[in-house]
Amino acid sequence: MHTPTAALIIIGNEILSGRTQDTNLSWLGKQLNEAGVALREVRIIVDVEEDIIATVNALRSDYDYVFTTGGIGPTHDDITSECIAKALERKFIRDPHAEALLRAHYGDQINEARLTMADMPEGAELIPNPVSVAPGYRVGNVYVMAGVPRIMQAMFDHVRPTLSGGAPMLSRTLTVFITEGDLADSLARIQQAHPKTEIGSYPFIRDGNLGTSLVIRGRDEDLLDMAFTELEEYLRTLTEQVMEE
Amino acid sequence: MHTPTAALIIIGNEILSGRTQDTNLSWLGKQLNEAGVALREVRIIVDVEEDIIATVNALRSDYDYVFTTGGIGPTHDDITSECIAKALERKFIRDPHAEALLRAHYGDQINEARLTMADMPEGAELIPNPVSVAPGYRVGNVYVMAGVPRIMQAMFDHVRPTLSGGAPMLSRTLTVFITEGDLADSLARIQQAHPKTEIGSYPFIRDGNLGTSLVIRGRDEDLLDMAFTELEEYLRTLTEQVMEE
Repeated sequence: MHTPTAALIIIGNEILSGRTQDTNLSWLGKQLNEAGVALREVRIIVDVEEDIIATVNALRSDYDYVFTTGGIGPTHDDITSECIAKALERKFIRDPHAEALLRAHYGDQINEARLTMADMPEGAELIPNPVSVAPGYRVGNVYVMAGVPRIMQAMFDHVRPTLSGGAPMLSRTLTVFITEGDLADSLARIQQAHPKTEIGSYPFIRDGNLGTSLVIRGRDEDLLDMAFTELEEYLRTLTEQVMEE
Repeated sequence: MHTPTAALIIIGNEILSGRTQDTNLSWLGKQLNEAGVALREVRIIVDVEEDIIATVNALRSDYDYVFTTGGIGPTHDDITSECIAKALERKFIRDPHAEALLRAHYGDQINEARLTMADMPEGAELIPNPVSVAPGYRVGNVYVMAGVPRIMQAMFDHVRPTLSGGAPMLSRTLTVFITEGDLADSLARIQQAHPKTEIGSYPFIRDGNLGTSLVIRGRDEDLLDMAFTELEEYLRTLTEQVMEE
């Protein structure tokens, strides 16, 4: 079975400057995984037209789904939508349905800046925004969402049931206070014996102690459990402290 | 004055699956900024050879500096170094100096898996690792560092004085509980009047209230202060609650 792939484009100088810690990636990564879609690549880029256009075009041909977050507000630095229209060679129009939503919500507080949030590529399908009304949208395989986490999450809740996913990626994690170098040979052997699962090894330092988290991933629960059992039995030959996390 | 540019490649399935929250980006973003280097792009990719090679080659020609984190440990899923060698078309060799460091540190705990941490592209210049010995390295304009934050940070502390930076990007932030749509026109006007600074507008939701953080950035302190003063005076015409953060 084909597992659909996805890429995420995070648009915004504030993430690259280190000023804001992104949280959208880890949230979306988990959600896509549960939906049976493999998030394969993330690009974080500046609010510069040529960069946005080039990135959207590179990724929309390589992946089944492309998600963008950020840059769809009403201010001068929100240029995502215009760039998406250029990337997809579509007219950049004021969407009548989005305009109606904004006018209904803002009443006499509506102004031209707010109305720009209804400007999007022609033919876009709106993604509702129950938090602050201004919608996201889908155009082709590109899903354009807000950058504010709570709004992005509400938008994605609408998108998720429309995605065609494969089996979700399952995972189980074992943690030991043994360094990678003492595990490597046996891990490689167990990985070879279980080619339908993927064993990842992640070293860490916790309270000054070196340890390793071993994550077994796979889409078939039985095969995953077999690899897990073999790994756990092996680890118990080395230490009594084998933690499932 | 030219501001050198940088890209960061974060290698590792655990970030994309949402299992691990990356913190290297925000730390490095701040450090590079202080060093006068503009972090312009981040790519987060899976541990797959062709993806790593393609990404390294795309970025090392586009940016002055490329940093990678992750995938240089001793286990089967650590394939970064071999991929870097292929990308740069250099021989993949066991570095004698790195091997000596590892042998001295591990003594009779040394094994072949640990020794693979001395395998790197020919001609690489080592980056010391005061935390766990196995070094990173620079080859051309590519800096290969560990993924564990504390180790990456210790490695970067050695790299930082060697970078040729321009003037650091300075920033000042004003926060108001006013939504972007009520600020957009005046922000665009202030931005136009101060072309040597960059005004970013970042909406947020805090305790259920909508607000906006306005970040003014620039490399000239006087010009930054002029834009800041004009923005602050404008905001004070709208609300008494203007917070510098």
